[in-house]
Amino acid sequence: MGTNHMGRQSIRFPQPPVVRGFASVAGKKEREGPLGDQFTATVQDTTFGEKSWERAERRMQQMTLELALEKAGLTDADLDAAFAGDLLNQCIGSSFSLRNRGVPTLGLYGACSTMAESLLLAAMSVSGGYARTALAMTSSHFASSERQYRFPLGYGGQRTPTSQWTVTGAGAVLLGGGERGIRITAATIGSIVDRGICDANNMGAAMAPAAFATLHAHFDDLHCAPEDYDVIITGDLGRLGSEILHGLLEKDGIHADVQDCGVMIFDTRRQDVHCGGSGCGCSASVLCGPLLSRMERGELRRLLFCGTGALLSPLSTQQGESIPAVCHAAVLERS
Amino acid sequence: MGTNHMGRQSIRFPQPPVVRGFASVAGKKEREGPLGDQFTATVQDTTFGEKSWERAERRMQQMTLELALEKAGLTDADLDAAFAGDLLNQCIGSSFSLRNRGVPTLGLYGACSTMAESLLLAAMSVSGGYARTALAMTSSHFASSERQYRFPLGYGGQRTPTSQWTVTGAGAVLLGGGERGIRITAATIGSIVDRGICDANNMGAAMAPAAFATLHAHFDDLHCAPEDYDVIITGDLGRLGSEILHGLLEKDGIHADVQDCGVMIFDTRRQDVHCGGSGCGCSASVLCGPLLSRMERGELRRLLFCGTGALLSPLSTQQGESIPAVCHAAVLERS
Repeated sequence: MGTNHMGRQSIRFPQPPVVRGFASVAGKKEREGPLGDQFTATVQDTTFGEKSWERAERRMQQMTLELALEKAGLTDADLDAAFAGDLLNQCIGSSFSLRNRGVPTLGLYGACSTMAESLLLAAMSVSGGYARTALAMTSSHFASSERQYRFPLGYGGQRTPTSQWTVTGAGAVLLGGGERGIRITAATIGSIVDRGICDANNMGAAMAPAAFATLHAHFDDLHCAPEDYDVIITGDLGRLGSEILHGLLEKDGIHADVQDCGVMIFDTRRQDVHCGGSGCGCSASVLCGPLLSRMERGELRRLLFCGTGALLSPLSTQQGESIPAVCHAAVLERS
Repeated sequence: MGTNHMGRQSIRFPQPPVVRGFASVAGKKEREGPLGDQFTATVQDTTFGEKSWERAERRMQQMTLELALEKAGLTDADLDAAFAGDLLNQCIGSSFSLRNRGVPTLGLYGACSTMAESLLLAAMSVSGGYARTALAMTSSHFASSERQYRFPLGYGGQRTPTSQWTVTGAGAVLLGGGERGIRITAATIGSIVDRGICDANNMGAAMAPAAFATLHAHFDDLHCAPEDYDVIITGDLGRLGSEILHGLLEKDGIHADVQDCGVMIFDTRRQDVHCGGSGCGCSASVLCGPLLSRMERGELRRLLFCGTGALLSPLSTQQGESIPAVCHAAVLERS
C-alpha cells in the first residue's frame, strides 16, 4: 500500500483533487448577517415554498447541488460518488435530496463536522482514483433542527446564554482532477473526544477539546504550524467554544488566530443568536460561499478548515450522558 | 489520478486490503436461530448488563471490537481509521462506543447497508494508502430500534405479516495490508432508489429495487456474472424482498441464486419474525460470523456481499413520504 498516511491521523494527497465547483444557499437570518451577500444564493422565505421544514431543507440541498453543478459545468451523470449527510434523524435531508438521481451515494453522520468529513472523503475517493468527480454536501435548517432537538417553534422556548442558533444553510463542493485551482492537499481525521460536558445547550464547550485535539494532531502529523496557513477556520464552536479553544491552544504553546464559522456568520450582538451559529449548514455555507470565493479571488492561498461536531442525541441527553465530539480537518490550497 | 474506477459505480482495488480480523456478537433470539453457533459470541441477557437498551447496544459494539482486535492481535493504537454507524438517532451506538479511544473515526449513516458501506470505505482507505489498518463496524439492537422506530416494547404492538425483526447483533472487520487471506478486491457504490413504496412495515419491497440496481451495475461495470461468485448475499431484504429481487433479476435475464442474511439468520417459520431479520446488525453479524468463517475455512472463495438499507425515518413516514433505499456491494475473495 502507499505512504499517504502521515503520523497518527493525517493524510497527504499525492494527487490533490481540485475544486471544480461549489455553492452555498442560506436563509433569511443568514442573509441579514455579516456574510449575507457572500452566499451563492439566499432566500427570504425559509419554507423554500414547501409544506414542511424537512421538505424545505431537502429543497435547499437540491438548489445548492444544482448551483454547484452549474458553476462546474457538470451534471448528475458526471458524479461518480456523493458523500452527504445532515442533522435530521436518519439523515433524511440528504437521502431524499439525492434519491432517484442515479448518483452513487455514501451517507455520512458527523453532526456539524459533516462538511469537513464529506470533503476529506470526497478527496480520498478522487485522489485514490475511485471517482473522477465526487460531491461533498451537507445542510441544516433552523426550523427542522429546532423541533427535532429542542422545542416546536410555536412553543417559544427561552434559550440559555451558551446556546447557539442552527444555521439555515447548505454547502456543496465538487472535486475532480486537474492541475490548477483550489486543491485539497491534506486532511486530518478526528478521533472522538468526550471531556464530560453534559449541557446540550453548551455544545461549544463540548466541541472545543475535539478541535484542540485535531489541530494538535494536524500540526504534529504534518510537521506544520499555524503560520503556514493564511487562515484557520473552525466549524461552529461559537463564541464560548472559541474562547475555550484559544485557551487550550495557548496552554499548549500554540499561538493561532482561529476564526469560527459560528461567530462569523451572525452578528452575535445584534442578531439574538447568543453564542453564534451552529448546524452542519453553518461551516458548509461559510466554506462554500465566502471562504472558497476569497480563495478563488486569490485573497487566501492556504486555508485549514476544521469542522466540529457534537455527537449527542436528545435521547443521550435525557439519559444523562455527556457529549462526545469530533473535529475533522482539510487543507485547501490555491495554486 | 488512477484508473481504479470501473463503469459508473464500481471500483477495483489495485492493492486489495486483507481481512486482518473480524468478530460478531449476537443476542438470544439470534443464538436460537439456524446460525446460532456461528457467531463469535452470543449473549443470553440482551441488556448486556446495562441499564438502558442504548447502553446495551454500545456495550455490544465494544465487545465486538475487542474480539476483532484480539483475533487480529491488534490494539486501538493500530487503527488509523474507523468507519462506523448504526440505526440510533445521531448514530449514538457508534459515537459512544468509540469515544475516548483515540481512534480516528468517520461516522456513517447507511441504515442497514452500513456493514457494506463501512467495508468498502475502509477498503478504499487502506488500498489508497490513507490508513494502514482500518475498522468497519456497525450494530443494531432489537429493543433500542423498536422503541425508536415503532413502539415501546411494553406496548406489545402487533406486527404486520410483511414486517421484519431487528437483529440484536454487531459486526466488525479489520482491514490491513498483506498478500494472503481474505481480500476486498472490488466494490460497487449504490445510488438511492425510491420506487414509491410507502409502507414502513414492508422495507423488503422498498429495498429490493435498490439491490437489483446495484447488482445490475456491478455485473455491468466489472464485466462479471453471478456464476463468478460462490455465493451472492443480500443484507436484509427478508422473505418478501428476496422474492421481489429474484423476480426483478429473472425479468432482466440474470439467473442468480441470491441468499439473504435476513432469511438466513432466523427460522422464519418457527421464530415468529414474520419476513425475517433486519437492522444494521443483521448483515453485519452474518458476514462477520458465519460467512467470513466459511471463507477462512476455504469453503467459500468468492463472495459478493450486498448490504441493503431503507433510508426512511419515522418522521418521513408520518409525513407520507415513500422510502428511499440503497444497496452497496463489496467483493471478498480468498486467495
